[in-house]
Amino acid sequence: MDVPADVRETYISNYLAATRSTGRLMLFACDQKVEHLNADFYGEGIDPADNNPEHFFRIASQGCCGVLAGQRGLIAHYAASYPQLNYLVKMNSKTNLVKTAQSDPYSGMLYDLDDILLMRDAGVNVVGLGYTVYLGSDYEASMLSEAGALIARAHAEGLLVVLWVYPRGAAVKAEKDPALIAGAAGVALCLGADFVKVNPPKVDGDAHASARALAIASEAAGRCGLVCAGGSTVDARSFLEQLHDQIHVGHALGNATGRNIHQRSLDEAVRLTKAISALTLADASVDEAVAIYEGRKEFSIE
Amino acid sequence: MDVPADVRETYISNYLAATRSTGRLMLFACDQKVEHLNADFYGEGIDPADNNPEHFFRIASQGCCGVLAGQRGLIAHYAASYPQLNYLVKMNSKTNLVKTAQSDPYSGMLYDLDDILLMRDAGVNVVGLGYTVYLGSDYEASMLSEAGALIARAHAEGLLVVLWVYPRGAAVKAEKDPALIAGAAGVALCLGADFVKVNPPKVDGDAHASARALAIASEAAGRCGLVCAGGSTVDARSFLEQLHDQIHVGHALGNATGRNIHQRSLDEAVRLTKAISALTLADASVDEAVAIYEGRKEFSIE
Amino acid sequence: MDVPADVRETYISNYLAATRSTGRLMLFACDQKVEHLNADFYGEGIDPADNNPEHFFRIASQGCCGVLAGQRGLIAHYAASYPQLNYLVKMNSKTNLVKTAQSDPYSGMLYDLDDILLMRDAGVNVVGLGYTVYLGSDYEASMLSEAGALIARAHAEGLLVVLWVYPRGAAVKAEKDPALIAGAAGVALCLGADFVKVNPPKVDGDAHASARALAIASEAAGRCGLVCAGGSTVDARSFLEQLHDQIHVGHALGNATGRNIHQRSLDEAVRLTKAISALTLADASVDEAVAIYEGRKEFSIE
Amino acid sequence: MDVPADVRETYISNYLAATRSTGRLMLFACDQKVEHLNADFYGEGIDPADNNPEHFFRIASQGCCGVLAGQRGLIAHYAASYPQLNYLVKMNSKTNLVKTAQSDPYSGMLYDLDDILLMRDAGVNVVGLGYTVYLGSDYEASMLSEAGALIARAHAEGLLVVLWVYPRGAAVKAEKDPALIAGAAGVALCLGADFVKVNPPKVDGDAHASARALAIASEAAGRCGLVCAGGSTVDARSFLEQLHDQIHVGHALGNATGRNIHQRSLDEAVRLTKAISALTLADASVDEAVAIYEGRKEFSIE
Amino acid sequence: MDVPADVRETYISNYLAATRSTGRLMLFACDQKVEHLNADFYGEGIDPADNNPEHFFRIASQGCCGVLAGQRGLIAHYAASYPQLNYLVKMNSKTNLVKTAQSDPYSGMLYDLDDILLMRDAGVNVVGLGYTVYLGSDYEASMLSEAGALIARAHAEGLLVVLWVYPRGAAVKAEKDPALIAGAAGVALCLGADFVKVNPPKVDGDAHASARALAIASEAAGRCGLVCAGGSTVDARSFLEQLHDQIHVGHALGNATGRNIHQRSLDEAVRLTKAISALTLADASVDEAVAIYEGRKEFSIE
Repeated sequence: MDVPADVRETYISNYLAATRSTGRLMLFACDQKVEHLNADFYGEGIDPADNNPEHFFRIASQGCCGVLAGQRGLIAHYAASYPQLNYLVKMNSKTNLVKTAQSDPYSGMLYDLDDILLMRDAGVNVVGLGYTVYLGSDYEASMLSEAGALIARAHAEGLLVVLWVYPRGAAVKAEKDPALIAGAAGVALCLGADFVKVNPPKVDGDAHASARALAIASEAAGRCGLVCAGGSTVDARSFLEQLHDQIHVGHALGNATGRNIHQRSLDEAVRLTKAISALTLADASVDEAVAIYEGRKEFSIE
Repeated sequence: MDVPADVRETYISNYLAATRSTGRLMLFACDQKVEHLNADFYGEGIDPADNNPEHFFRIASQGCCGVLAGQRGLIAHYAASYPQLNYLVKMNSKTNLVKTAQSDPYSGMLYDLDDILLMRDAGVNVVGLGYTVYLGSDYEASMLSEAGALIARAHAEGLLVVLWVYPRGAAVKAEKDPALIAGAAGVALCLGADFVKVNPPKVDGDAHASARALAIASEAAGRCGLVCAGGSTVDARSFLEQLHDQIHVGHALGNATGRNIHQRSLDEAVRLTKAISALTLADASVDEAVAIYEGRKEFSIE
Repeated sequence: MDVPADVRETYISNYLAATRSTGRLMLFACDQKVEHLNADFYGEGIDPADNNPEHFFRIASQGCCGVLAGQRGLIAHYAASYPQLNYLVKMNSKTNLVKTAQSDPYSGMLYDLDDILLMRDAGVNVVGLGYTVYLGSDYEASMLSEAGALIARAHAEGLLVVLWVYPRGAAVKAEKDPALIAGAAGVALCLGADFVKVNPPKVDGDAHASARALAIASEAAGRCGLVCAGGSTVDARSFLEQLHDQIHVGHALGNATGRNIHQRSLDEAVRLTKAISALTLADASVDEAVAIYEGRKEFSIE
Repeated sequence: MDVPADVRETYISNYLAATRSTGRLMLFACDQKVEHLNADFYGEGIDPADNNPEHFFRIASQGCCGVLAGQRGLIAHYAASYPQLNYLVKMNSKTNLVKTAQSDPYSGMLYDLDDILLMRDAGVNVVGLGYTVYLGSDYEASMLSEAGALIARAHAEGLLVVLWVYPRGAAVKAEKDPALIAGAAGVALCLGADFVKVNPPKVDGDAHASARALAIASEAAGRCGLVCAGGSTVDARSFLEQLHDQIHVGHALGNATGRNIHQRSLDEAVRLTKAISALTLADASVDEAVAIYEGRKEFSIE
Repeated sequence: MDVPADVRETYISNYLAATRSTGRLMLFACDQKVEHLNADFYGEGIDPADNNPEHFFRIASQGCCGVLAGQRGLIAHYAASYPQLNYLVKMNSKTNLVKTAQSDPYSGMLYDLDDILLMRDAGVNVVGLGYTVYLGSDYEASMLSEAGALIARAHAEGLLVVLWVYPRGAAVKAEKDPALIAGAAGVALCLGADFVKVNPPKVDGDAHASARALAIASEAAGRCGLVCAGGSTVDARSFLEQLHDQIHVGHALGNATGRNIHQRSLDEAVRLTKAISALTLADASVDEAVAIYEGRKEFSIE
């Protein structure tokens, strides 16, 4: 209801593009070059291809994802070569140099919405925006304000908004406490986000119980779709099983995956995006998804 | 006098809608998903229906209230399905993660008035705005400034403003001290609010004496109507008795109730909104209101 | 010289209205509902009428003053009923909850000049603005900046500005030191204020010496008129004697009085405003003023 | 090169007026009523005339100076009576109440450039602006930013800018260290100032050596003219000798003098401005300048 | 892709001018008069000519460089005399008075982009902008925001942007750690910079290993060109060898050199800029570059 009539068509078209007309979101998270500096891209256990930022774009264009999420500059540098991708511009970011023990996290807006609209006008296929809020931080108020205003204005321009909402700061003892994750989902709803990305709630030693806890959070998010962060790289089957649970037990409306994809070689990463998309967008089973990942089965979407 | 001639009609119409033409306000407080995260909506003693945010809207549309108060995004997500409700947009909010012992409270503006006007233009029935001020906080100046400017601009657009005014912070020893509550009411008047929501003053162990203390605050509020926050859930009769005292002894011009309503099942909550409205808007007695709550008596307004 | 030619007539007319064409200012200070909360309006030694904010307006309309100074919202709520008064809008205010021992004082702008102009356009008789600066506070720079810009823009709109200038903060040992008061007066001049309201300088145990010290401050204020704050309520004769000294020994160009007026009953307060005005605006003697206060002599202006 | 073609004539005319067509600046510093409150204007060793701020204007109009530098309000109050003077508006100022030991100095912008342009449009002969930067303060970044933007915009309006650059703050051990003064001069150049006012560098016990150290700073200032602050009042001959050294040994392009002038009686002050101007603008010798000061020789400039 | 179609020609022309049509950047860093005050320009081991800021411009006009980088004011003062140079305006700067041990570094924007555009309109040949970000500082968020927005707007005006990215602050233990430098390069890419200036990574006691580590950073920078800061003055051959390694082993796309050039006499400095340019822009060998530096060989570019 906050999308004006004259941009509703744009909004719907962006929504359909981002969700591949399924209402579910497969978000390829490529914003870690700021958040984690080069540690996610070079070193032991990481394919050497990942040190070149073009790796993101090669994966996304040969593989299958809903949106490629990254900072404005990253997208500006490569979008001319990869014009067909759906881009989601991450509006704020911080490095991990200052730890929470030193000071509570604040991730500031890196540019204005106008700067993104200009890029869209220049032909970049921007379908949405992302913003991170650290609930419970001393700087919570600044981030809630920036997020709330951003969503209102983005909708007025026909763009989707995905909020990353993470409880973090001296006041937060257990960042993945189920009640807290459900609260985070509710905050995103109240700010008007289309999707909220949260860390999966953690219930002691039981992944399935975590997925059930996730269902509470998904309900608390109401009409705001909930997706989980993918976390650090694990073996593909475990990853796909966990995602299947998130969707079918936890009622997640998709996934947001970064390292699990881009730390692999191009070929392997491409296959993994297809497996994830099959599972997220086409209700494939875990076995089918694993078969796609292992190259034993084809998958494409259009 | 700060409503320009050309919007006075809009203002009056919003005022009459919000008060159901009675001059008294029945405000259904649905802003706690940010303030209290999910703790008010899921857990022991709370009806399971409350975890789904649509619960608010179902109650308000089947029951009876003056305005549904919530954040912009919450309203934006559901207003298309519930177009007939009167909405009051809460302009600022904070979570309860950072406690006053850690730092004084600040609740920042979540979006601009322009963002709300845009939503109104898109057809959402916004009749007013809400804003919380923590008097005595280290950040008092910021909140007074934001509130003062908001009221001036809201009136210029024909919108009502309700201020939530709570003394809180290291400098505040007794948040419900009667003199402080009366002072809070006067501050709201000086800023130009239409209504002020305060915590009921607390006089040791005597609810009736509290209502008399409230009468001092109501007088100090002058032409700004005073309503009390409903607080945590209690049994319905106690709640209605207390509200009756607030209105008939304390000269409150209505009520602002959240948890006492939405933590109940849909059916029970609907009946309670009617009981409250009967008491607030139609001068029903406590017994009549209880009868309405218990389904032994009908009530509707219009 | 900073009033543009096309608004000079408005400025002069406001100046004459505020000073009743005498060049002296009788300012009725009604801004304490924020500054002192309800403590100045309800309690021992205060007439019960003072708890109702309309008391201010009844006194001013039945009595005699140059301007009624209060916050925008207070004026907006009552100006329709009291359209003939000259209003001076206090632009900033703070409560007294946070003490100087906790942190240095900052009083923030509560609304923009534009908000006031809108109210003036809607028919409220606003002749000027007020702003408080705490010299020596850690936040001095913010207040000097806000005051300096306010004066420039107010003059450009034909409005007078009265600055309240109080040295206060950890760095200030003696707030009423004569040299400091003279300095405060000079700061107001340098910012371009029309009048400066200061606390009367305090010379140990000698009211007359204080008035002579005030003369130094008045001279240091140059073309900016100096008036003294009235302080807490004392008996009427003492008050009038002190004021007579301020004007005739201290060369004050008027007075700024609040509690001494509004804490009395309507009738008594009305007579006191006449006594003060006789002394300030018509060079009455103390005895004549006391006679007016006691109802033994009539006084009116215009 | 940052003065647009269409205002270059205004700029040149202001430059010639301020420097009396000599390229050297005689700046009469009248901004101390904020900086030093009333201590520079009233008390032992200060002529009683100095307590009245009009003293500045009488001296400048009867004597001889390049520009009278003061805050906007001071100039606005008197410019109508003294229209022929060249005014330089000091854009920021702070009082000396908060000492550096309590917190690092910050001097905030007191009004916007637009406010000054309005005053110029109203007929006040404003030829330039002044701004103080405390290098090494915790607030250095704010002042550098304000100064840098001010200079760009002032030049775009044809106004000169003089920067007062003083190293000060917890990080600064020796405020008059020659290398630091030379650095301060270079910063002013890099910000684009026309003139920089610094404290004369101090070389242990040797005024002449200080003047030679000043030559290094003057060279480091490049195309930005350097002038020295006059400091506290000393006997006239010493003052004039020191100034002669600054110009002829230290290559200063003028002087900025306040207390040494205005703390004297009108007559004496007028003669001192002439002596200073003779020395600064007309290359008079110290003896000639002393003769002018002592009234044994005439001096005027046109 | 963030350069609008109608300014793409300007952007390309600026890019070609700055890189002398080679894609490599030879940046002459003249911004140290703020960063290091006068210590880099006067004293032992520094040619006396360096105290006069015109030295920069004489070197650049007689020698050979891609862009002269300096603050707006410095360029404004001399550009009329040296109109043919390519200027890169450094947008932020701080002095070195406050040490990191006292507080984390923040370098604030000194003027707006509009101020630079005005100067460009007035005829100054501005081809690009520079901005410094201190990653890991408590003020990182402010600098990332300013940089991100600056790049978007600069590109919209056809200007290049070079980011200086230095990890620094209490949270940073080893400023030249190879992983950190690679991360810094990635941040610049994500913000959209055209070039990033980093400190060369430091691998214990082995310059060649450092150059190999630099290659990782260059790859991590993706389509953002990487250049290294020149550091303090060393003998010319060592300097040129190190630069040759940076380019041919470390894949640096140029260099950014200040002190190594301007601390020498005019003649020597001119020859060094030619040697550096030969090496950077024309793939000269170290021996050829040394021969040019020693005047045994000619070099010019056009």
